[in-house]
Amino acid sequence: MDREELFRKVSVENEKKMVLLVLDGLGGLPLKGKTELETAHTPNLDLLAAESELGLSHPIAPGITPGSGPAHLSLFGYDPLKYEIGRGILEALGVGIVVGKRDLAVRGNFASLENGLISDRRAGRIATEKNREIVAFLNEKIKKIEDVEVRLTSGEEHRFVLVLTGDGLSDQLTDADPEAVGLPIMYANAKTEAAAKTARIINLFVDRLTAELKGFHPANTCLLRGYAQYPAIPSLKELFKLKTAAIAVYPMYKGLAQLVGMDILETGRTIADQVTALQKNYAAYDFFFVHVKKTDSYGEDGNFAGKVSVIEEFDHWLPAILELLPDVLVVTGDHSTPALLKAHSWHPNPVLLKAAYQRPGMEPAGKFSEKKCAAGILGNFPAMDVLPMMMANALKFKKYGA
Amino acid sequence: MDREELFRKVSVENEKKMVLLVLDGLGGLPLKGKTELETAHTPNLDLLAAESELGLSHPIAPGITPGSGPAHLSLFGYDPLKYEIGRGILEALGVGIVVGKRDLAVRGNFASLENGLISDRRAGRIATEKNREIVAFLNEKIKKIEDVEVRLTSGEEHRFVLVLTGDGLSDQLTDADPEAVGLPIMYANAKTEAAAKTARIINLFVDRLTAELKGFHPANTCLLRGYAQYPAIPSLKELFKLKTAAIAVYPMYKGLAQLVGMDILETGRTIADQVTALQKNYAAYDFFFVHVKKTDSYGEDGNFAGKVSVIEEFDHWLPAILELLPDVLVVTGDHSTPALLKAHSWHPNPVLLKAAYQRPGMEPAGKFSEKKCAAGILGNFPAMDVLPMMMANALKFKKYGA
Repeated sequence: MDREELFRKVSVENEKKMVLLVLDGLGGLPLKGKTELETAHTPNLDLLAAESELGLSHPIAPGITPGSGPAHLSLFGYDPLKYEIGRGILEALGVGIVVGKRDLAVRGNFASLENGLISDRRAGRIATEKNREIVAFLNEKIKKIEDVEVRLTSGEEHRFVLVLTGDGLSDQLTDADPEAVGLPIMYANAKTEAAAKTARIINLFVDRLTAELKGFHPANTCLLRGYAQYPAIPSLKELFKLKTAAIAVYPMYKGLAQLVGMDILETGRTIADQVTALQKNYAAYDFFFVHVKKTDSYGEDGNFAGKVSVIEEFDHWLPAILELLPDVLVVTGDHSTPALLKAHSWHPNPVLLKAAYQRPGMEPAGKFSEKKCAAGILGNFPAMDVLPMMMANALKFKKYGA
Repeated sequence: MDREELFRKVSVENEKKMVLLVLDGLGGLPLKGKTELETAHTPNLDLLAAESELGLSHPIAPGITPGSGPAHLSLFGYDPLKYEIGRGILEALGVGIVVGKRDLAVRGNFASLENGLISDRRAGRIATEKNREIVAFLNEKIKKIEDVEVRLTSGEEHRFVLVLTGDGLSDQLTDADPEAVGLPIMYANAKTEAAAKTARIINLFVDRLTAELKGFHPANTCLLRGYAQYPAIPSLKELFKLKTAAIAVYPMYKGLAQLVGMDILETGRTIADQVTALQKNYAAYDFFFVHVKKTDSYGEDGNFAGKVSVIEEFDHWLPAILELLPDVLVVTGDHSTPALLKAHSWHPNPVLLKAAYQRPGMEPAGKFSEKKCAAGILGNFPAMDVLPMMMANALKFKKYGA
């Protein structure tokens, strides 16, 4: 029996409410002796930590730095090495596209073609504004190829996502990208017989796009690479019998939540707005994923003080969440983003779990921090165990075996 | 190489003695700030803990509450998700039946039949005494069907276990149970061709039993559900080259020990009796599993003080065990049974390992407790690693690889 079979077998529904608060990139590294979390003034988190189970979680495995995709899958209870979410899907999610079961998402670049040869693989990194104009133009001109619907969405600069919608599409294709300048357009080849139709559509699309952009410069052709279909991932409803909702601001996280079957709740952009959304929808779901992005953004910018201030803002709003009296509450990150590294890192996430049937640990009183979590009763554990532990604490798991 | 291959490869025999002391359901939750273990006065355990390696073990996985079957398999070194022990086998073990390789164990209820329809699926929950009378009567009347031996054993109230013994039996059958009242007897159907014979025997048995009980009331027919064959599980001898014995009072635990090839030693019902059995047989084996049941029983009853008193009784006898100078001694639970929850729980087990070549941790001196174990040098780990760690400490594992 694998872990998903196990979850399906032991999960039961009840009225208890669970809230998973994710501060993206929460974990950090010390600057002048203190991490971002240790530097932040967090009276509410500190108080909560004193009566919670604490630990450190590894998003993927010790030493592995995750992207947002696998890090969130792990937090949602999935084995992040079992489900690979194609780059095309993540790009699509990142620009706010909902990818369905009949869709094929493809990453694309606008590129420059001169005398039949690719001269710039990024079309001089055209402005995003310009990209939007071209995409609007192309979406008017090319709506369908054979029986397959075609839709482009702009990314930043020269990037776009192409979504094909139709029956019998496949991601078993080679890239339509020569991978170097000075070469002609490279067409896609089917790797399997079943992918022949998709390869034909892709190549017809490249020709149509190049014809429509004839005379334009520098963006007058495209490169396509990275195909991805909707991943066959069981929903949280299927695995855990949960009615789930996400309160996230950024498209990527809404998309990831949608992949596992969460309803996406409307919210404004501030933490205060997100708390309001939680309050408003609290009766309707039994699991909420609340995603705070800016901790990670500041971490990536190397802005230590900025990250500290977001943690403090979150701490300010924590009591409003606690007033809802969730049966199980978790505060954690999806991965660490130390301002010192200006990047995601492999350092495990601080985890705080507050519930009724918890066992106090021996960690010293005081500041909620990475180091206090390391001394916590939960120890070091895989992040994919967070959701099962929440389920247990909500009494939503029955006994396994007699 | 999987873990079992690894164990077979590195295990060696030597003269060292290992004792695994299992206090069923040992782990708890605090009442007035202290768990059962923290409340108990345990001077001997406390002293031992100060010179032992400590940790917390997860029987199955974080968040998963185990039944006794998988929890013990895990303690015996098996992956509890690899070997599923059918409900029929556990019921059989629970009433003291030894299930062998040619046996098929089936769970049954006596039920009531009126005018050809099932009117009560539990025959009015007849008294266990009455059940025993009926079973004795039936065992006289029905000894064999075709070439298959038939034997019934009484359970509590309306429950019994049927064991068929013969060649070519299969558990691939549908239940002989309509699952509702107001319906006629439901016969078993073979799910595979190989199960055709077993289905025929089962259905002939139902008819014979119903014919023999004609005129009786309320128990005048039966429902059969849950078939199980002897699980194909390698013995501890095969995996670890160990000569093993169990000192347990309750049939279920003797049965589980027997499944993995342990000899079952005679013992009285008290902890003192069990210690005597250990002393008497100490020369003859190199691994002893000693099972103390009442910690769990009181936990299930919500009897906090009762559980505390069993822990104290155990502590009283601990020095007599230590006098045997076992080379490796472990004190742990199979799972937690907090009196607060009146049930098994997901909370990890305190583990104490005492051996010659151990590494002291940094946990503070004082009371042996869950929280002290959480701070122990062994950290949080899967319970199926307990036996390998005992093997290592007994120098019964040679080096893996060159």
